[in-house]
Amino acid sequence: MIKVTVWNEYWHELKDEKVKEVYPKGIHNAIKEFLSTNEDIEVTTATLHDEEGNLRADAGITDELLENTDVMLWWGHVKHGEVPDEIALKVKDAVLSGMGIIFLHSAHHSKLFKLLMGTTCNLGWRESNDKERIWILDHNHPITAGLNDRFFELEAEETYSEPFGIPEPDKLLMIGWYNGGEVFRSGAIWHRENGKVFYFQPGHETFPTFYNENVQKIITNAVRWANPACKIKLECPWIARLEEK
Amino acid sequence: MIKVTVWNEYWHELKDEKVKEVYPKGIHNAIKEFLSTNEDIEVTTATLHDEEGNLRADAGITDELLENTDVMLWWGHVKHGEVPDEIALKVKDAVLSGMGIIFLHSAHHSKLFKLLMGTTCNLGWRESNDKERIWILDHNHPITAGLNDRFFELEAEETYSEPFGIPEPDKLLMIGWYNGGEVFRSGAIWHRENGKVFYFQPGHETFPTFYNENVQKIITNAVRWANPACKIKLECPWIARLEEK
Amino acid sequence: MIKVTVWNEYWHELKDEKVKEVYPKGIHNAIKEFLSTNEDIEVTTATLHDEEGNLRADAGITDELLENTDVMLWWGHVKHGEVPDEIALKVKDAVLSGMGIIFLHSAHHSKLFKLLMGTTCNLGWRESNDKERIWILDHNHPITAGLNDRFFELEAEETYSEPFGIPEPDKLLMIGWYNGGEVFRSGAIWHRENGKVFYFQPGHETFPTFYNENVQKIITNAVRWANPACKIKLECPWIARLEEK
Amino acid sequence: MIKVTVWNEYWHELKDEKVKEVYPKGIHNAIKEFLSTNEDIEVTTATLHDEEGNLRADAGITDELLENTDVMLWWGHVKHGEVPDEIALKVKDAVLSGMGIIFLHSAHHSKLFKLLMGTTCNLGWRESNDKERIWILDHNHPITAGLNDRFFELEAEETYSEPFGIPEPDKLLMIGWYNGGEVFRSGAIWHRENGKVFYFQPGHETFPTFYNENVQKIITNAVRWANPACKIKLECPWIARLEEK
Repeated sequence: MIKVTVWNEYWHELKDEKVKEVYPKGIHNAIKEFLSTNEDIEVTTATLHDEEGNLRADAGITDELLENTDVMLWWGHVKHGEVPDEIALKVKDAVLSGMGIIFLHSAHHSKLFKLLMGTTCNLGWRESNDKERIWILDHNHPITAGLNDRFFELEAEETYSEPFGIPEPDKLLMIGWYNGGEVFRSGAIWHRENGKVFYFQPGHETFPTFYNENVQKIITNAVRWANPACKIKLECPWIARLEEK
Repeated sequence: MIKVTVWNEYWHELKDEKVKEVYPKGIHNAIKEFLSTNEDIEVTTATLHDEEGNLRADAGITDELLENTDVMLWWGHVKHGEVPDEIALKVKDAVLSGMGIIFLHSAHHSKLFKLLMGTTCNLGWRESNDKERIWILDHNHPITAGLNDRFFELEAEETYSEPFGIPEPDKLLMIGWYNGGEVFRSGAIWHRENGKVFYFQPGHETFPTFYNENVQKIITNAVRWANPACKIKLECPWIARLEEK
Repeated sequence: MIKVTVWNEYWHELKDEKVKEVYPKGIHNAIKEFLSTNEDIEVTTATLHDEEGNLRADAGITDELLENTDVMLWWGHVKHGEVPDEIALKVKDAVLSGMGIIFLHSAHHSKLFKLLMGTTCNLGWRESNDKERIWILDHNHPITAGLNDRFFELEAEETYSEPFGIPEPDKLLMIGWYNGGEVFRSGAIWHRENGKVFYFQPGHETFPTFYNENVQKIITNAVRWANPACKIKLECPWIARLEEK
Repeated sequence: MIKVTVWNEYWHELKDEKVKEVYPKGIHNAIKEFLSTNEDIEVTTATLHDEEGNLRADAGITDELLENTDVMLWWGHVKHGEVPDEIALKVKDAVLSGMGIIFLHSAHHSKLFKLLMGTTCNLGWRESNDKERIWILDHNHPITAGLNDRFFELEAEETYSEPFGIPEPDKLLMIGWYNGGEVFRSGAIWHRENGKVFYFQPGHETFPTFYNENVQKIITNAVRWANPACKIKLECPWIARLEEK
């Protein structure tokens, strides 16, 4: 059983009628819903804001939660700054110890993603209902398995564009094409010490992206891919002084 | 002084009036012309067909030529099969020993590129006068130095599309966007033993691509990047049995 | 069920008393034996020479065998040249279509490995009963899962040394240390189109390496890692002319 | 002219007689000395402690210094914690904008290296006068150019060992072998946005490593390699909202 935690800043859905309409129970619950249909996946959610819109001092993330999470999903947008540095650093340590992490859409600018990448993670963007066509570069990767066409389309997504300020991915899996003229590295993986990292571009809050079956298939695949074979404590004996000779 | 050899199959320009109009002296001479304006670059050409359209048995490539080439450029399209296997293998050995190699456009299906990649190098394509917009992913690489915008455009190019059957590039430098809906990894580098490899997508024979100043800048930069620090003989002493102990 | 084929040139074991003593049924059967203890793995063997030491014209590899193989293991040493080019090319196509491939020890100089790498795959070597200590660089990779120490040792192995003429691995998993003073990239992976490739250095014919439990664990892990999510026909519709617009 | 700044925490040389004997003017000046023999390189030094051993509040790093530095070298060991976070972050921004950076020896645990890598950068170590043999994996890289043997040796160096908690290098250039039984990725490069990063393991303060001609050649080569083609301001126009359509 893979223990998954879906983290969401949970702000737009509470404050913006348009977003509330698309995701009435929050983006985290929309993701929980489709992931939970899999017998090998057990889903918890955690949110920065509670149902009344109050900020949680610990961003909803406790040590116990991290110890019980194999793979975390992260959705954030306008409230990255509200996640305390010490929480971001604690989750980073969990990733380096083996916890898988999946960054969705505007999570590219979260403290956590920037800490793991070591770069600005800047990009260009435009909100204009562009159509996105996501091209699959590798059809035999665990994350793209079952996507049997060259590409799939999203009728509307926020446009993201290169240059994307990231280190060269360990493997680039998808490139997004937008009818407005932009391209973007829409699906990419990295390894950070013992943890696997997947960034996936789709998922703007005003669009029903998380109900799209291809998006759901990719996220489900990514959960299984990011599930650690084992977790390695960072304070384990070998990361220390070698015995004297 | 960097010794460059521009190799061209030289067929379309002799047989097709439309192409002859665009490149009256052949694509190789169009490339030679702009490269030769640089004081540190010395250019030779070599062609599969002579001016009368006769096939050269050695594909225009001699041992002496290879010994005197630091960087080779390769343009081929419909005559890949006419390059003898032993010539392709000989050029491959020169690359593995340190000679830089730049593959232009349809050279993706040359014997030489496929030998160096180990894959099919297949792709999707369409001739339809699509506009191409080439996005630069890294503005501080030696190959893209001096391209100070996010992208540049070619009014018309042959459309190439993913999936492109190549090994993961050592660094992906450019992605092409086509208004017909396609994307393509348009500029990418690999290292193969001692030799540097650059693949660059633009350059269809019916379009004046090689007169474009950004294309010229990229190819000129690539020549300097691919120039070997040294050439290592493949039969050098260390690639051999170690001394007994 | 993962369908595995263990291929062996099967020569030393028939001709050399010392090797026969270590592997009386051949290296292929030693590998088959430990792999077959896993319920999810089904093993076939194929050999270049039959039990009488006669060369098989097809190297023991038929189209039917390839169609029924998910992952192939390859052990060869002094008879690489006896594998017909067309067989090597056929197996290469199977890999590019998705079949996983694991190269063991001196298979670094097989036609197949060199075709997939695009380089000479040269290295330095010495037979001197050096002790090898294999350091694990990543303890959370599917191939190293369960190896819970910094390194494991082999009392005697053939010494291989850098420089190893390979393209930069997609991920370097292990480095070998030899008490004679050498180092070697002992475990490394690559992706080639739809197929996964693992090279693993241990396995000289005069040593009981394939009875070592760590070696067995790594090879077993590698079989599961290399098992394709799907096989993609290289002549599939998208690797072709795009529809006209 | 390449403008180089050699940064040193400058502590051991002031406090430890043994180190003072090896580097009487400090490690930074030993490096400055050999770099300054090159006509294309202009060297400045900056130190965390002044000649009296007083801590500099700005770690010796001003905005003006960063603006006038093309490539920085970083040597630190026991005083990583004394470099203020805001200084480490400022230098990181300079790297992401294009400044080259070379980390020497125990700088692997500097705030700056860890910020750029996104990992712990942990390793095993032992001080025991082991001999180190550094194997060159690629003899045609700008950083290793001119090293014409398979390896070179250092009579004594601090032993570092795998696993080294770093992201997969963009290219691994060297592996260190220690007679005590350890291996280490001794020379490796990464790209971080617009900046080039080189980590080089040799350089323990009690050994005369920086007087070794191979070490000097590698560091000199690395300075030229890391020199940026251009510097890109992180607040440049394209890292911003795209124009509306």
